[in-house]
Amino acid sequence: MEKIKPKILKGFRDYLPEKMILRKKIIEIVREVYERFGFEPLQTPALEYAETLLGKYGEESDTLLYQFRDYGGRGVGLRYDLTVPLARVMAMYPELPKPFKRYQLAPVWRAEKPQKGRFREFIQFDPDIVGTSSMMADAEIINLIYETMKALGFKRFVIQINNRKILDGFISKLGINKNQSPVVFRILDKLEKIGIEEVRKELVEKGLDKETVKRFLRFIQIKGNNQEILTQLKELLSGNSEGIKGIEELGSILGYSKEVGIPEENLKINLALVRGLDYYTGPVFETIISDCPEVGSVFGGGRYDNLMGMFCEKEIPAVGVSIGIDRIFSAMDTLKMFPNKTAISQVLVTVFDKSTEIQSLKLTNELRKLGINTEIYLGEGNLSKQFRYANKKNISFVIIIGSAEIKENKVTLKNMATGEQKTIKNIDLIKNLKALKL
Amino acid sequence: MEKIKPKILKGFRDYLPEKMILRKKIIEIVREVYERFGFEPLQTPALEYAETLLGKYGEESDTLLYQFRDYGGRGVGLRYDLTVPLARVMAMYPELPKPFKRYQLAPVWRAEKPQKGRFREFIQFDPDIVGTSSMMADAEIINLIYETMKALGFKRFVIQINNRKILDGFISKLGINKNQSPVVFRILDKLEKIGIEEVRKELVEKGLDKETVKRFLRFIQIKGNNQEILTQLKELLSGNSEGIKGIEELGSILGYSKEVGIPEENLKINLALVRGLDYYTGPVFETIISDCPEVGSVFGGGRYDNLMGMFCEKEIPAVGVSIGIDRIFSAMDTLKMFPNKTAISQVLVTVFDKSTEIQSLKLTNELRKLGINTEIYLGEGNLSKQFRYANKKNISFVIIIGSAEIKENKVTLKNMATGEQKTIKNIDLIKNLKALKL
Repeated sequence: MEKIKPKILKGFRDYLPEKMILRKKIIEIVREVYERFGFEPLQTPALEYAETLLGKYGEESDTLLYQFRDYGGRGVGLRYDLTVPLARVMAMYPELPKPFKRYQLAPVWRAEKPQKGRFREFIQFDPDIVGTSSMMADAEIINLIYETMKALGFKRFVIQINNRKILDGFISKLGINKNQSPVVFRILDKLEKIGIEEVRKELVEKGLDKETVKRFLRFIQIKGNNQEILTQLKELLSGNSEGIKGIEELGSILGYSKEVGIPEENLKINLALVRGLDYYTGPVFETIISDCPEVGSVFGGGRYDNLMGMFCEKEIPAVGVSIGIDRIFSAMDTLKMFPNKTAISQVLVTVFDKSTEIQSLKLTNELRKLGINTEIYLGEGNLSKQFRYANKKNISFVIIIGSAEIKENKVTLKNMATGEQKTIKNIDLIKNLKALKL
Repeated sequence: MEKIKPKILKGFRDYLPEKMILRKKIIEIVREVYERFGFEPLQTPALEYAETLLGKYGEESDTLLYQFRDYGGRGVGLRYDLTVPLARVMAMYPELPKPFKRYQLAPVWRAEKPQKGRFREFIQFDPDIVGTSSMMADAEIINLIYETMKALGFKRFVIQINNRKILDGFISKLGINKNQSPVVFRILDKLEKIGIEEVRKELVEKGLDKETVKRFLRFIQIKGNNQEILTQLKELLSGNSEGIKGIEELGSILGYSKEVGIPEENLKINLALVRGLDYYTGPVFETIISDCPEVGSVFGGGRYDNLMGMFCEKEIPAVGVSIGIDRIFSAMDTLKMFPNKTAISQVLVTVFDKSTEIQSLKLTNELRKLGINTEIYLGEGNLSKQFRYANKKNISFVIIIGSAEIKENKVTLKNMATGEQKTIKNIDLIKNLKALKL
């Protein structure tokens, strides 16, 4: 057969076991917290009708979507996010109990040019609450972010919060045309990347006058603790009903968050926070790891009350976030939060030779029945090769059963970390393994 | 905005929470067993170069593959199974410790015509062992199937086993040209579906003479216990080295399986078992649930020693299986193995009115900190609406905190199954919930 060169598409990744074991741990921790908050799992297909997916992003995102014609000539595409499929589900199954709280863990695909930290395939893991306008829902999402970050082991992190209505309100107070809001937001969203002077330049280029831009930039840089900022906002936005509504929403979320014990150091107003997507209508959030800000926001989202209307007869209010599993992974790696060694198997039972393999197999089986993740060596080769295998796979304990051991109903247990090795009675093996905190 | 009709592509499915919760349970049970055997997780991209995917199936499967050109003009396709990506991984990362034991849980896509029980997107969850020819590896796969089926709660099931070398050996003994083997196998694979007479007809149509076909069909229908069949096989295949090798392999696997305590009623030779794919080279397995055979084989696979050579310099022997999660689900559903009610949330804390919501929120938070999956009602509406919500979501317990309760530091706990309702002191709540085996 002609050989095929093994290669992987650019922007796509293999996760080999060493990395995958850690990713799986992260995902399990996150899922446990989501479920403790009562979010239920949902799954949707990877492929959808292209028109379903394109409705939200419009023509300019055509080329971000992996789309093609299937054999039936239908225009189909790989999902771009988990929010549009959720909106489709809400429209297709009106019988779902509302408020509908679901999480979805699934890959999404974007036909973008791959860059550092940007891939064409990545996992999303979104909790959303659909069918309520209550700010308690937004506060639940904030609390969920907080508890997830704690459960993952992060100590210093800031959930940044803002409200689109506040920005919209101030923009209108400045006399900027409301149609300009999305343009202003898209430029502001680049702040972290391009800096304040570049934002100023781009806003002026869009036709805003310098004095207006100056006042806008001063506004988004208001500093202080949350209460101080709220007080200033009330003054600056007095008389603007949309702005006032935004301040009330923000105050309400901060109030609930205080009651559930989220410290102010973990939840701060950032008036420069806007988020890129057009569809947010109120509160928006991002989460920065203070010791590792370079990975970017690890938990971002907000309220989107006008998206479901794309498919549904009437609008259904909703709020949700996305967690960046890749970014969480990078941060945990950088901050050395992972254990030194990761393995699935706790014990490797070696095979001395053909005459002893049945004893090795039986012992393997017994250990598994006790709930210990155990491998029997399935390759060929002597004991030192088998030890190397255990080392490569980070297996902590190796058991040797040679004919000498078998004669005396004993086994030899080797601790791979310390190199310590002792021959013990069969019946003492479990006791010994337990003492080693297996 | 113009409304988009919400619809899903034919052959694709949404998994709403009620079903997804059960699927997730199945997956967790299976994963736990796989890991107890020391299989490690691997993940690969959904999209691969089309030539990577097509190598194995050849031109006739072109139309089974979802393939298209990406914006860079590359021919790409959605993975068709998890075996080809595994072969690619083995070739790309020669440093992986061998024997390499991995499992992969991921969707695969097939552009086939959807039929009853056949979908265009479905989950595969494959354990494979790469890099060893030892029959102990095949026996490990059999043991893994056995333990997984037990862990899922199945009592009566049969792992059917056969060996391609035995069939090949007998075909050669019958004087059938070896090139005809794949043709014979493909017809034999349809036995369950089309019946013995149709198989006979098709074999004759392919040019085999009637007497040969008769002898072949008598062979594949040999009955008896495993030892009896092995004895007959030795006689029938004496002098045929390939056949003898197959019998040895079969005997070896049965021997190991006996040592780890797999009862013969759960592991039976079936000489008519062949499996459809061309690439199997030795042992093949399928698993039938005796009380629900209509779902078909739920665990099928075998040894494929000549597949890795597609990408690798040299052949790497391998053995593995696929579990049919959808079929397992159907069988468990039919056999009423699922609990009556499934829910993520154990408790719903109601909100009496605006004045009591903070107390509800705080209690919700406390219960969560105790590890209880708890929801606070986030919608609008009176208590009876909130009870209906709990009912729809199968939540077992509802807590009511009205102003009367708050005054006396009490809560009302309602058991949704019995309708029983009692007002208890705050401090007794946890004790009460624990007594209810929450």
